[in-house]
Amino acid sequence: MPLRIWPQVQTVSRRAGLAVPGFRVAGVRCGLKPSGNLDLALIASDLPAAVAGMFTKHAFPGAPVVVSRSCARRGRARAVVVNAGIANVATGAQGEQDAKQMTRLVGAELNVPSREVMVASTGVIGVQLPMDRIAAGIESAAKELAPNAWDTVSRSIMTTDTRPKLVSTKAGGVRLLGVAKGAGMIQPNMATMLCFLASDVAAEPAFLKAALHSAVGPSLNSLTIDGETSTSDMVVLLANAHAGGPALTEADLAKSPRAQSFQSALTDTCQRLADELAFDGEGVTRIASIQVLGARNARDADRVARSVANSALFKTALFGADPNWGRIVQAAGAAGVRLDLATLDIHVGRVPLLLGGEPTGKRELAGQQMRRTRVEIEIRVGTGPGEARVLTTDLTYDYVKINAEYTT
Amino acid sequence: MPLRIWPQVQTVSRRAGLAVPGFRVAGVRCGLKPSGNLDLALIASDLPAAVAGMFTKHAFPGAPVVVSRSCARRGRARAVVVNAGIANVATGAQGEQDAKQMTRLVGAELNVPSREVMVASTGVIGVQLPMDRIAAGIESAAKELAPNAWDTVSRSIMTTDTRPKLVSTKAGGVRLLGVAKGAGMIQPNMATMLCFLASDVAAEPAFLKAALHSAVGPSLNSLTIDGETSTSDMVVLLANAHAGGPALTEADLAKSPRAQSFQSALTDTCQRLADELAFDGEGVTRIASIQVLGARNARDADRVARSVANSALFKTALFGADPNWGRIVQAAGAAGVRLDLATLDIHVGRVPLLLGGEPTGKRELAGQQMRRTRVEIEIRVGTGPGEARVLTTDLTYDYVKINAEYTT
Repeated sequence: MPLRIWPQVQTVSRRAGLAVPGFRVAGVRCGLKPSGNLDLALIASDLPAAVAGMFTKHAFPGAPVVVSRSCARRGRARAVVVNAGIANVATGAQGEQDAKQMTRLVGAELNVPSREVMVASTGVIGVQLPMDRIAAGIESAAKELAPNAWDTVSRSIMTTDTRPKLVSTKAGGVRLLGVAKGAGMIQPNMATMLCFLASDVAAEPAFLKAALHSAVGPSLNSLTIDGETSTSDMVVLLANAHAGGPALTEADLAKSPRAQSFQSALTDTCQRLADELAFDGEGVTRIASIQVLGARNARDADRVARSVANSALFKTALFGADPNWGRIVQAAGAAGVRLDLATLDIHVGRVPLLLGGEPTGKRELAGQQMRRTRVEIEIRVGTGPGEARVLTTDLTYDYVKINAEYTT
Repeated sequence: MPLRIWPQVQTVSRRAGLAVPGFRVAGVRCGLKPSGNLDLALIASDLPAAVAGMFTKHAFPGAPVVVSRSCARRGRARAVVVNAGIANVATGAQGEQDAKQMTRLVGAELNVPSREVMVASTGVIGVQLPMDRIAAGIESAAKELAPNAWDTVSRSIMTTDTRPKLVSTKAGGVRLLGVAKGAGMIQPNMATMLCFLASDVAAEPAFLKAALHSAVGPSLNSLTIDGETSTSDMVVLLANAHAGGPALTEADLAKSPRAQSFQSALTDTCQRLADELAFDGEGVTRIASIQVLGARNARDADRVARSVANSALFKTALFGADPNWGRIVQAAGAAGVRLDLATLDIHVGRVPLLLGGEPTGKRELAGQQMRRTRVEIEIRVGTGPGEARVLTTDLTYDYVKINAEYTT
């Protein structure tokens, strides 16, 4: 199945020689993946960095999530170590010890406090980490740290991803770079969405936390491939102040152009990474942005958008490029939100398909929009202020094939 | 794809000569289906019957739902008229008039008040009913009313169903018969779950309402094929007191053996119809009952069961007969309910797959259970009193094919 790629992201992610001042990184092989591919990454900040993180709300978070969440709460980090191949989930007390041991090994190599080291693991669950290999991997990664190795990092964290995901941008004199892996949370044994963002901006942890929440809400948290949540999802933002200037505070978000410029770059980066994750979803041939407008409030808008985005009927219609407004109406009305059909407008691309609950007869034109690689669906449900956007993917034969035939 | 049928239901539904004393029914052709198949059914009670109904919670209910809901609130009905082929949904004021006109036409034919006539429609949405054909259909159905024509009724209400669904039982001297159509709510344009139950029991509307809610909760309302809700779903129970005896009251449910025997027959009938609907789901090769035990309360149990039942990953594993406990753990933990992995047991059939969060190594044996037509999954999450059961189906190539290629 030919998989077309959103050209803009492709261009950015292929740019070589990317670096964020004050960060050195590495990706190495330590034998966790049967394929023998790169499987351990280290991100190190030469200066103590402020940090913010967002973590899975799954009832069974992996040991690395527990360790990294504590570090994020303290707001300071010097390094992140990531392994792919084994998730260190459902591994009990041994798993907790191993996650902590990874922070100690990194701390010793880099001569930094282990409590300022974050750890992330992704891969199969219910399997203990081979700590001898992990230790060797950390040792060799520490030796290979270099400013320009982000591409290697993006490859080391892959599991079932078909390609690395890296976005880099510059805004208001600061550099922001993000790598991500996973495809939503679509495969519980080899799954997980991980995203690591590094910047040389000077900012307090509280600023980073607020900015990260604002950025992730409409991007990575608005991406659904099959409605699944992983035990290990994590988004981490490190900022080492290398660019200088006074540290941005939470209060700056409302008034400082420098803060707003960073927020905008961060949101844009997260959105581009979310698009890359969606396109790399299992069996995906097409993605759709579901924008809901005019709801009573943002929560109602979000419920309607997610109801459409997770509808198996909408997702199969997307695969078939069928401008089937009946399925959108059905899914929107089933969201558990009070709606009036008489004030419902649906546009595909900019083509009106339904206006005031009445079909416009423009199925042919709308069908052309449905055949695009990225389909824009706009659902206006009334005149309220509530808006939401959710990114979703099509449901295809290949999704079923990959997941019905996949064996742990 | 070979579709195996749950033998017990098959046997029951093929029994000929079924009747419920005091009810006469008919199914006729009036030209609503392109195929020319039976498309209009009439159920008439010779005596005024007590009635209870449960209706879709969709934000855009069809006009027939609005009309029948009012009738159910009043608690008395003489007849139900059902057409298949056109759903009379998203049809505005004309649709409302047409639904009411159907009750008047039946009222005139049967010489009963039109407000005691219920109406249901299923089929394409956004299309007006051809009332001349409907009127001719009602006229001819009224002429053909007969006690033994329930099989014809079950065929007249079909849309994309591949076979009729009829269950009949006798309990404590009363007869209970149910017909149903639809396959969950899996196709918004030709979809809808309709279920009509008739009994000769003597009972007050309040008793019927309570008994119906108890029966539908763990059966028809616990069936999910793709998480979709239709604009026209309806379950109606008519009881004409032909069997005699004092009318059962709501208070009897707690103490009268006669009431409990009826409740048990009603629940069993609804569960058997739910199984039939599940097996006739689009592309379905296998169904699974997800039983959750030991939750803090029934609501938590239901959330965990539904999270597993609606998980695309679990549904594809079911198709592949893969005893993938990782996907069950993943989906259970993502339900938004506080759980502890250390107290999680998972059984497939009666084979333990996970005990206290630890794999038992019995994948082989569990795999044999997964290859059955009806798979029993038991998830014990703790020692609380909360229990729930949800019935689900596998997600197959054929589901994607039918829904990606289906055009309105």
